[in-house]
Amino acid sequence: MTHKIAVLPGDGIGTEIVAEAVKVLNVLELPLEMETAPVGGAAYEVAGHPLPEATLKLAQASDAILFGAVGDWKYDTLERRLRPEQAILGLRKALGLFANFRPAICYEQLVGASSLKPELIAGLDILIIRELTGDIYFGQPRGRRVATDGHFPGAEEAFDTMRYSRPEIERIAHVAFQAARKRSKKVTSVDKANVLETFQFWKDVVTEVHKEYPDVALEHMYVDNAAMQLVKAPKKFDVLFTGNMFGDILSDEAAMLTGSIGMLPSASLNANGQGLYEPSHGSAPDIAGQGVANPLATILSAAMMLRFSLNQHEAADRIESAVRAVLAAGLRTPDIWSEGTTRVGTREMGDAVVAAI
Amino acid sequence: MTHKIAVLPGDGIGTEIVAEAVKVLNVLELPLEMETAPVGGAAYEVAGHPLPEATLKLAQASDAILFGAVGDWKYDTLERRLRPEQAILGLRKALGLFANFRPAICYEQLVGASSLKPELIAGLDILIIRELTGDIYFGQPRGRRVATDGHFPGAEEAFDTMRYSRPEIERIAHVAFQAARKRSKKVTSVDKANVLETFQFWKDVVTEVHKEYPDVALEHMYVDNAAMQLVKAPKKFDVLFTGNMFGDILSDEAAMLTGSIGMLPSASLNANGQGLYEPSHGSAPDIAGQGVANPLATILSAAMMLRFSLNQHEAADRIESAVRAVLAAGLRTPDIWSEGTTRVGTREMGDAVVAAI
Ligand SMILES: CC(C)[C@H](C(=O)O)[C@@H](O)C(=O)O
Ligand SMILES: CC(C)[C@H](C(=O)O)[C@@H](O)C(=O)O
Repeated sequence: MTHKIAVLPGDGIGTEIVAEAVKVLNVLELPLEMETAPVGGAAYEVAGHPLPEATLKLAQASDAILFGAVGDWKYDTLERRLRPEQAILGLRKALGLFANFRPAICYEQLVGASSLKPELIAGLDILIIRELTGDIYFGQPRGRRVATDGHFPGAEEAFDTMRYSRPEIERIAHVAFQAARKRSKKVTSVDKANVLETFQFWKDVVTEVHKEYPDVALEHMYVDNAAMQLVKAPKKFDVLFTGNMFGDILSDEAAMLTGSIGMLPSASLNANGQGLYEPSHGSAPDIAGQGVANPLATILSAAMMLRFSLNQHEAADRIESAVRAVLAAGLRTPDIWSEGTTRVGTREMGDAVVAAI
Repeated sequence: MTHKIAVLPGDGIGTEIVAEAVKVLNVLELPLEMETAPVGGAAYEVAGHPLPEATLKLAQASDAILFGAVGDWKYDTLERRLRPEQAILGLRKALGLFANFRPAICYEQLVGASSLKPELIAGLDILIIRELTGDIYFGQPRGRRVATDGHFPGAEEAFDTMRYSRPEIERIAHVAFQAARKRSKKVTSVDKANVLETFQFWKDVVTEVHKEYPDVALEHMYVDNAAMQLVKAPKKFDVLFTGNMFGDILSDEAAMLTGSIGMLPSASLNANGQGLYEPSHGSAPDIAGQGVANPLATILSAAMMLRFSLNQHEAADRIESAVRAVLAAGLRTPDIWSEGTTRVGTREMGDAVVAAI
């Protein structure tokens, strides 16, 4: 059986890092059929839309999507629906990619790259699970209008709707509890039940779903406290799961805590196991085209793709071991470089992973 | 002229820390008339409501409110409108306390208490300004209902409304730009304009208001990026301002980064300069009644009160100098204690500040 992969490099460093991941996938000699299409600003340039019909069709017809990154300051003045990030929002929505897995791992050799004191971060291995198709990201109604109540009736205002339905919360809760069963059986559900109706409901539903997982310990935590505890004692977390908006903030905070966001992959899955795989970092237009971007997050995203969507666990293991080997050999792109290690570029790093496989 | 102060100690360590702040205020021999009233769980116990009518009246009739902290696990099962934190939300709303000032300062002697490497945090002095009476905290409609659209029409759902009107954004933007003029003339406005209508509007209005402050540099940053940059390079910020929800998360993250959240005061002001002053930390029910809580955040909140609402700058200076003096003398409550310093309790710390004045 051939697996069909949509390869969407996108903008900025996207092209460079995805090229390395493709190189790594090719060397594994798996039955993969990869097809590339433009997305984000790159797609806007050629097709007038960040997520052209053809790109979306390709994504829908594929078993998995290998995604680079989208975005560039130069599109900031476009109307919102044409901006690069609409491509990623559109893909999440169209494919129903509701379960976002964002591991925050601190690699042994990169402890020094963290802002945190080594003892607080060494050995960190958290799995953040973010709901990705609900919440205030997609809730209707939203827009601008004249306020009819509030502090300034009659004034112009803008508004958005936060919302979660029971089945949306249930399915992401199941994902979190099941993930915890494969780890240390501990889940932190992050909410703001003390202020928001949506997240009181979230807390209630999560508590109900938890009854089916008596072997997993569940803790509830407010989002402001979670933002603090991540800084204070990140290793106290194991699986942390939350809604789309809070997950956006906390997963980035946690990724940056590790000091090696250039190393962190992510997976966004739908109910059929179809998934979009992308690095946790962005398109970094400031360093694009210089051959210095770290391709490891994308290469590790390819490994996640093999594991989660293609059921190719052995091949995924081979990639992950190869990445550990190149780190152990002291190779570092500039973002993770430190005294005493060897500075390499994007391509050399990709070649090294290929060689290690 | 006598200044009227409502003293609302609240729950947990609230009583202990507020007692020390009152002691400090008393020694200054200012024309203050202080009156105490119950709030939060303590008020629920005696009056059946976290913000009894009498407490609210007292607060409204005062020039300033000195607030301790509210909350205790034991009230978690009460219906939301009776829970302790409704008192603080109710006070903010009733008094129109829209401008929340949350300095995140790292005291020289406490650099070691931070999770961050000393070089990243030493000398940190950020002012976070959080809008406090708008956003999804108070937006209507909110509640539970049957979904009519979205992913699961027909399912039970909960929802909230995020909203900001033009005058709400304008007034907090003016506060931020004016605060920046007294500091290093640099403001970061945090939004999520790439996803939310509310925060695209926020960004647009802030950009307009900025025209009146050509001497202040304005930078826009997405909330997920701000959560990261605070971890990576907190000293790059000076004045950071944002909405209620994002401000809740980022101000706590920043406070914890300093490592000395027990030291950080806050002020919440309305358009008349009336203000509520409280420590940035919570009620810490786990250590309540043991005489070990750090009263310095509350004592420094009293100093902020003198400065912001009572125009008593010299008295405020005296408190702040006294706090620096006790730190320099090596006195530490357990939360900030380290090898080589002297461990003291809540009362000894308050006494030491009084002595230093
Ligand atoms: C680009 C943006 C819309 C997106 C989000 O907010 O979800 C990004 O920050 C992410 O986390 O993937
Ligand atoms: C207690 C809670 C309602 C409150 C808030 O979310 O505003 C608190 O976290 C704060 O920051 O003062």
